[in-house]
Amino acid sequence: MDTKDSIRILVTGGTFDKEYDELTGSLFFKDTHVGEMLRLGRSELKVTIETLMLIDSLEMTDSHRDRLLEVVRSASENRFLITHGTDTMEVTARRLAGADIGQKTIVLTGAMIPYKFGSSDGMFNLGSALAFVQALPPGVYVAMNGQAFPAEHVRKNRNSGKFEWI
Amino acid sequence: MDTKDSIRILVTGGTFDKEYDELTGSLFFKDTHVGEMLRLGRSELKVTIETLMLIDSLEMTDSHRDRLLEVVRSASENRFLITHGTDTMEVTARRLAGADIGQKTIVLTGAMIPYKFGSSDGMFNLGSALAFVQALPPGVYVAMNGQAFPAEHVRKNRNSGKFEWI
Amino acid sequence: MDTKDSIRILVTGGTFDKEYDELTGSLFFKDTHVGEMLRLGRSELKVTIETLMLIDSLEMTDSHRDRLLEVVRSASENRFLITHGTDTMEVTARRLAGADIGQKTIVLTGAMIPYKFGSSDGMFNLGSALAFVQALPPGVYVAMNGQAFPAEHVRKNRNSGKFEWI
Amino acid sequence: MDTKDSIRILVTGGTFDKEYDELTGSLFFKDTHVGEMLRLGRSELKVTIETLMLIDSLEMTDSHRDRLLEVVRSASENRFLITHGTDTMEVTARRLAGADIGQKTIVLTGAMIPYKFGSSDGMFNLGSALAFVQALPPGVYVAMNGQAFPAEHVRKNRNSGKFEWI
Repeated sequence: MDTKDSIRILVTGGTFDKEYDELTGSLFFKDTHVGEMLRLGRSELKVTIETLMLIDSLEMTDSHRDRLLEVVRSASENRFLITHGTDTMEVTARRLAGADIGQKTIVLTGAMIPYKFGSSDGMFNLGSALAFVQALPPGVYVAMNGQAFPAEHVRKNRNSGKFEWI
Repeated sequence: MDTKDSIRILVTGGTFDKEYDELTGSLFFKDTHVGEMLRLGRSELKVTIETLMLIDSLEMTDSHRDRLLEVVRSASENRFLITHGTDTMEVTARRLAGADIGQKTIVLTGAMIPYKFGSSDGMFNLGSALAFVQALPPGVYVAMNGQAFPAEHVRKNRNSGKFEWI
Repeated sequence: MDTKDSIRILVTGGTFDKEYDELTGSLFFKDTHVGEMLRLGRSELKVTIETLMLIDSLEMTDSHRDRLLEVVRSASENRFLITHGTDTMEVTARRLAGADIGQKTIVLTGAMIPYKFGSSDGMFNLGSALAFVQALPPGVYVAMNGQAFPAEHVRKNRNSGKFEWI
Repeated sequence: MDTKDSIRILVTGGTFDKEYDELTGSLFFKDTHVGEMLRLGRSELKVTIETLMLIDSLEMTDSHRDRLLEVVRSASENRFLITHGTDTMEVTARRLAGADIGQKTIVLTGAMIPYKFGSSDGMFNLGSALAFVQALPPGVYVAMNGQAFPAEHVRKNRNSGKFEWI
């Protein structure tokens, strides 16, 4: 199959994939749950899941973003879903939007509550982002709160925890 | 706000909204959970939720479909998400596609496992369908298994329970 | 270890272990979930889990109960937890209580909502029954709704779905 | 009803009742979930739930324990279930065991994973502790990992997170 039509899912971490460590009482990363979530959603999409890193987005540096950029640039796919912490999702989105990566559709999403906890927005956001990456024209977008925002027009409202148009 | 830009969610039932009755051991409908699911997904979309009926789609008749058609035709919105049982979702989709209802984007979705049970595809499908109804051009679609199928090109494979292109 | 001090868990089915079949929309049995539930409860008890049958208790016959009785009589353990459908749990309990099986502590439990569905009473009942089987003197009991009822003094109230003293 | 036969549930907090704050990404206390858990377990026990405090047990001081002791001593009930953080549960248990509080059955329990998260041992432990408090003779016990340990013979193994007999 022509990989140009498949979707590459790049995992970077964020609350989306955090888990609770019962021995220390803190949150940590083990593995990504994206594959399991796609099975639960009974997704039949052709996707490749690649874990680039598993970090809180507050710990993301230019070096991390450069790596992400390089993977996107060199991949043969032209559709990407990036799971990412919500705190600096807009920073990464704008970095990708300003780079020279060709005509690709890139959608970033995350979660406010870890998928592993009850009442997570993870499954909803994953379904949403995967739909947007298939339907939207080339560009970089943030898919949160049911919507897709172009990278240049989005910011996370730190009081409400919601993403909004700017 | 111009209602033309908001989304009307029409609930018809299906496995999506079924619940388990512990006294009889069977499945039944009480109320729709769509509002609760949108809150869990932290959706900020402007939507109106209307419960037209709560039935298994195997019990849907032309009369039911006529009612659904009429609501879609007369509403001022031009974007609709219809929750529906998966067994005859394609029948309803094709009925809507063949009707004269104007330039509207209509997406039907459902679930293979009730939202109220563990491991449901409900949240994933709702996020998916809401994204598609915002991004796709006017027409009638079925959003299941992560994809959006035009009404004339979809059928449910009864052996696998998955929706496929025809 | 002296098997007399370990607990033998005998699985017979009931709502406790039912699952939802998404292709047919009905409930069915696959495997017992007791082992998984004990891991979730972080139980450190020495137990042996044996699946005798996986049926709805409305389908239980004298033949099924005879088999259960024989397993209890011939086992070396003297503490048993039996998972069972709630509809005829009291029938099986009284059968065991009237039989000549020696000085054994036997606790029957079940669930009103399948463990696999959200909001199940399964984990609560399992923890409850396992505690009762360790603390109660020899005899046959039904552990439901947080309490332990001696076999001769219990019945399921079919209107409320709760177990009560008679 | 003679309150001597009812159970008084004293809530002190611990992982059992922690929740995830999506805005800060940390764990915090809002209200106890014990009432909701008893409804889910379909418990028909006569209980009174009293929230004394909602703290991590690492923050418990003699002052907190004195308050707990006083409530137990002056109450008319003679059966108590105390929800408590697991880190210093044995400390509080031994304090109660060494005090002059009369012939009361006191069972402490908690959870390694918050009830509000998926895969919690909370429901199992609650069912277990409530059964033990009904069946055990007067004394102070810790109910964790499916067992009841007398206060003088229990400690939490900090490596495994399990409670064991000493």
